[in-house]
Formats: sequence, C-alpha cells, structure tokens
Amino acid sequence: MLNPSVLALGQKRSTIRELFEFGNRRAAKIGRENVFDFSIGNPNVPAPDTVRQAIFDILNQEDPAVTHGYTSAQGADFVRETIAQDLNRRFGTAYGARNLYMTVGAAAALSICFKALTVSAEDEFIVLAPYFPEYLVFIGEGAGAKPVIVPPRAGDFQIDLDALARAIGPHTRAVVVNSPNNPSGVVYSEETIRGLAGLLAQKSQEFGQPIYIISDEPYRELVYDADTVVPFLPQYYDNTLVCYSYSKSLSLPGERIGYVLIPDAVQDFADTYAAVCGAGRVLGYVNAPSLFQRVAARCAGQTSDLSVYAKNRDLLYGALTAYGYDCVKPQGAFYIFPQTLGMDDYAFCEKAKQYDLLVVPGTDFGAPGYMRISYCVQTETIERALPIFERLARECR
Amino acid sequence: MLNPSVLALGQKRSTIRELFEFGNRRAAKIGRENVFDFSIGNPNVPAPDTVRQAIFDILNQEDPAVTHGYTSAQGADFVRETIAQDLNRRFGTAYGARNLYMTVGAAAALSICFKALTVSAEDEFIVLAPYFPEYLVFIGEGAGAKPVIVPPRAGDFQIDLDALARAIGPHTRAVVVNSPNNPSGVVYSEETIRGLAGLLAQKSQEFGQPIYIISDEPYRELVYDADTVVPFLPQYYDNTLVCYSYSKSLSLPGERIGYVLIPDAVQDFADTYAAVCGAGRVLGYVNAPSLFQRVAARCAGQTSDLSVYAKNRDLLYGALTAYGYDCVKPQGAFYIFPQTLGMDDYAFCEKAKQYDLLVVPGTDFGAPGYMRISYCVQTETIERALPIFERLARECR
Repeated sequence: MLNPSVLALGQKRSTIRELFEFGNRRAAKIGRENVFDFSIGNPNVPAPDTVRQAIFDILNQEDPAVTHGYTSAQGADFVRETIAQDLNRRFGTAYGARNLYMTVGAAAALSICFKALTVSAEDEFIVLAPYFPEYLVFIGEGAGAKPVIVPPRAGDFQIDLDALARAIGPHTRAVVVNSPNNPSGVVYSEETIRGLAGLLAQKSQEFGQPIYIISDEPYRELVYDADTVVPFLPQYYDNTLVCYSYSKSLSLPGERIGYVLIPDAVQDFADTYAAVCGAGRVLGYVNAPSLFQRVAARCAGQTSDLSVYAKNRDLLYGALTAYGYDCVKPQGAFYIFPQTLGMDDYAFCEKAKQYDLLVVPGTDFGAPGYMRISYCVQTETIERALPIFERLARECR
Repeated sequence: MLNPSVLALGQKRSTIRELFEFGNRRAAKIGRENVFDFSIGNPNVPAPDTVRQAIFDILNQEDPAVTHGYTSAQGADFVRETIAQDLNRRFGTAYGARNLYMTVGAAAALSICFKALTVSAEDEFIVLAPYFPEYLVFIGEGAGAKPVIVPPRAGDFQIDLDALARAIGPHTRAVVVNSPNNPSGVVYSEETIRGLAGLLAQKSQEFGQPIYIISDEPYRELVYDADTVVPFLPQYYDNTLVCYSYSKSLSLPGERIGYVLIPDAVQDFADTYAAVCGAGRVLGYVNAPSLFQRVAARCAGQTSDLSVYAKNRDLLYGALTAYGYDCVKPQGAFYIFPQTLGMDDYAFCEKAKQYDLLVVPGTDFGAPGYMRISYCVQTETIERALPIFERLARECR
C-alpha cells in the first residue's frame, strides 16, 4: 500500500546517484584517491572565502532569532532586492524584490514552475535532449504532466528547431532550456535562442496560449572562453521563468539555495508570481534556508574560483580527442560528453567501472552512445585517469 | 493558463502568514514594540549557543567542499547515525542510520509521507481537529489525496476515539497525530494513545491493510510540567512514521531541517523507506541542507532555553482565565487556545487587530469559536498585551 511509481523511484536511484554511492563505497575500500569518480556534479572547488566570511559576519552581527527564523515564503525582502539589483547591474534589467521567489535550490525551483503551470494531466513540457534526467521525474510524478523529448541537432547539440516545431502542440505548456547544458557543456548560441524565441512566439499565437520557457541556469557563470556569451533568455522571450541555483557558482550544492525569477514581462505577471508561491506551498517548501538566503545576498555577483574547471576542460578535451574519442568541445558547465567507443554506452560505462572510472551513460540523458564526464574534480584526478581513458579507447575501438 | 487551485493558494496566503505579513507592515509603521504579534510560531528564544559554536567549528575544521556538498539523498550517514543514537539513548530504541531520512523541515517530511502513502485519489488521511491548517494543503493539492477531519473531544481536546472510529473507512491511509498540539498546546495522554493504537490495529485488520500514524512532532521537547510525559508513538503502534523538525527545539525554523523516522517495525520497512526516498525525489528535495544536517548531529539532544515558554504559558493562562476566557491549560508547544468571547472567532480576531493584537481565528484550525495565541514571544510583549486582552474581554463578553 505504497505509491507504486514513487516506490519504484525510491528503489531505483538515478544512475548518477547510484554511481555516486558506488564511488563512496569503493573509496572506503580502496581509498578515495584510487576512485576516478566523474559521476556527479559536486563541485570540488570550495565555496569562496567570502561565503565563510559572510556566515561569520551574519552570526556575529545579527540576531540569531532573525537569522534562523522564518522568512516570508517568497524569501526575505532585502535578500530578493539585493539579488535583483545584482541582476540589473549585469543584464541592464529593472527587476526588484517583486520578481524573485527564493527556493530550496534549482530542483525546487523547477518543481515549483512545473506545478504552477500544470493545468491538466494532458499538459506537456518539452525537454531538449541531452537533458538532466530528473526533469522527467519532476514533470511526470511531481507535477502530474507529460515530458516530451526532442532530440538534439546532430553534430553540435544545439536545439533542432524543426524537431521542436513538430513536437509543439495544443498541450505544450513550456520548453525547458538548460544552457550551459548538463550533460553536453554546450552553450546555446544567440542564433539558436533567437530561433527558439521566434518559434515559440509563433506557436503561442497559433495555439492561442502562452508557451513558456523554463530556463534552468545553474551553470550561467561557468563558461571558459572570453568570446562565449550566454544569452539571457528574458531579453529574448517575454514568457521566460528563470530557475537559478548557487550550487555551482558558489559551490554550495548541499545547501539548497536558489530562486525563480519571474520578470514583469511575463503574461499575467501577478498571477504567475502567485502561482509560483502557491506551488511552493503545495510542495511543502515553507521558505528557502534562511542563513543561506542571507549568504546569497552578501555574495551576490561572486563566484568560486572557476579557473580550475577551464584547465580541466582543456586537459580532458585535448586528451580525449587525441585518444580518438569524438566530442563537441564544451563551452560551459563542467561536463564533457564524448561518444563511447565500440559498444553501447551502458556496456562502455560498465567496463570503465571495472577500472574504478565512473562516468554516466548518455542514455540516461536521452542520448545513447555518449557518456557524461563531470570534470568538477581535482586536476590530478583527471591526470591519473587519462591512462584509463586511453586504455579504454585502445581496448574498445 | 496557470494551475487554478495552486494559483488560489498563492493568491490567498494562509491566515497565519497573512497576519505575519500584516504585523511586519505595522511594525515598520508604528514600531515593532507596538505590535502584539501572537500570530506565528517563530521562536523568539534564540538558538542555543551550541548551534553557533557548531557552525564555527564545522567551518573551521571541515573541508568546505564536503560541508556544503551534496549529501546522499537520505542525508549524510554519520548525521543519521548520530541522531539515531540520541533517540536510542532517550527512548531505549535500537535505531540506526537506516531508519532516518533527513528532510527540509517538518513540512517536507509530512509532504513526503503523504506522497509516499497515496496510491489513488480516493485515499484519505485523517486530520484531528484542532489541526495545523497546512496539513490540508499537503494532503490535497500536494499528494492528491483527501483530508478527512475529525472533531476533538469536547472539553479537553483529546482525541474523540468514537468519532475517529466512525471516520475510518476502506480508503483511510493514515491518521495525522500532532502532540504536543498546534494550536491547542494539549499533549495526548498515554490513555488516549493506547486507545488510538488499539483502534487502528483493529481497523487495519478489519480493512485488511495498514492504517499508519503520521506523527508530526516538532514540539516533542516543548513541555512545561515535570509530570507531563509525551508518549513516543512508535512504542505504542508499529506502523508509525515520525516527522520531526528542529525548528522549535533548536529555534531554527528558517533553516528547514528535520527528518522522517521509519522504524524497523513498520510493515514492509525496506519498501516504506524506499517510498519515502522516492517521494522526496519526486517533490524536488535533493537533500536536506547540508550544513544544518551537520549542526543537527552536533547538537543532538540539546534544546534552546525553553524556560521562557513555561513562564509565558503560566502568565498567559493565569491572566486569560482571570479575565474570563475559557481555555484548556496547555501542557506543551507554545500555543494557548482560548474561546473567543461574545462573537465568532473571525470577528473577535478582527477586533483584536484594531488594537494591533494579532491572534489567529480557531476556524483556520478546524475549531470555530477559539483563537490561537502563539506565546513564543518576549515575556514583556505578553505583559504589555494583557491590558488589551482584558479590555477585549470587557468589551465583548
């Protein structure tokens, strides 16, 4: 007498979580340094010292009953105002506290948006492959709607706009966009985003109702080349809800702190904001963790030292292509997504596991024949793992 | 094109939250000291200094990439083991990490349990009046099941077992028990709990399926008389899931940290634990906030200085009964729940609001004709508010 689909999701962890737990067990047995765990997006770069200093300052200067007390459900007013001002500084926007709803990380932000926009069980959310697999759980079991998967454009993992056009129908509520992308590391170009915005405007008109963009942006600040620009979606398409998390930019994934940005330009702004608040309430989110709301405000606009990710990307991309792996050069996030060699991705990743090299099969991201390598690890771990990647290439090709 | 019931919940905040926001606006206008806000259960007693010390120690001693990193979805193993050992010390149980699932506070714990146990839209969860109103939201909109309300036993707010027996049917999945109770402050007696356990065992057999107790226990440690014992429900009834929060015991309501306890004795323990994990995943909870998981472990078994609540209770109970208010003496939590005088509870609370005295109508807790007074405030606030309570009694009686 348990919810069967919920039970199934609890019995079978995501492949990523399963590999993460396997890695922890192996580390306990053979030593952390002998496990080459590229499975999970747990940043190895520590939070910047400003986070530590912010916590000390808050605990030394502020009233603990306020610091640790309930905030308004949407987040403390000064926190939202500070974050809005930082966004305005960076993007030339005019947001205020009214546009932000603080969340328990991006997963909560996404779950809340799906719940707010789901009107019936027929409703569909379009997910662009390759995608973060938990989207399907949040949309399906979480919101009671249907995920519709659109394959990527071959060769560069940009959005296949023709395939997307064919997938949009009268039940389409939103398209989930994740750029810089997990798992491919690709940043959608301005050309792609303009095409997307044009298509959605046209389709919204055709079906007589808004089709939203839900922009999942935990990797916004993680780009590695001077000429890479991540288009800020609300500037291209009005009906955009942005889901942000400090997990990657400030290396705080365990603290669960993020926000939903609801721009004024969103159709029926006040109702949309209210529906987001209502969805948070319905899902049991009372307020985002209060100390880390304050930390996010104090650290607005800052990031961890991201230079190691750039170094890791260059090292991995150079070596893997030299070994004969075929892959799109990632411009952001901390993932590289090469094709597997000589066998399907599950078999390849199982084989890698025998060498204590943990990478995630592309099938889990809707892209069979690839593997996701998370390079948010010590550079030394990559250096020591490269011979294994080389050996696998030799053995499998 | 927004989820209409979710939108409605976002547009109309709970009465408690509405009063809380009203109080904040009034405080900004006339000064915090002139608003007598008894609306929300936001502890005024600060977190104990051990919390502050624990945070300093963790930040000074531990690797920030671990401290702030993802934990296992069910919580860090050592955290769960430490909390289990503390429970074992206090209750003579034999729990381990395997029995605990760390949550983003009690609201998340409850939402997760409702979701895990809901198999169809016909499923019912019994809520005992007077009750915390968000139960209805978590059960209805959150889990997609039906709340069934059972009125209290007149005179003492214990469980009316006959009324409960009549309410149980083939769709009953669980009974929500909240003792010490919000809003009445009543602790269910051992006699009540034995009667409840016997009834549920009999009804489980009659309907051929387990009827669970979901025990919502954020106020477990908040009792004020040496002879008040809060029965620990798993010792009376096997199919009990305990939802705990550190919000009140450690004065950390904004930090959102708590757990679900799933005892080994629960039917199909492994599946039940897995369903709880699955429900957490479905609702977008990745892991409970990592720093405060560690704080909870370091502060296991400790509490804030709760003596002020005892003092506040005595002061309020003595004065209100002297003014002619009729009320059950609260044994725990930090609420007192007197009858309103001379008019219905909404009218009475509106009248109180004109004097900047904020109390919540009993109707919101399923008990018309009463008002909830949260006394987790400065004793001075109570002292200064007593003349207003007296004046209201004179004017309304």
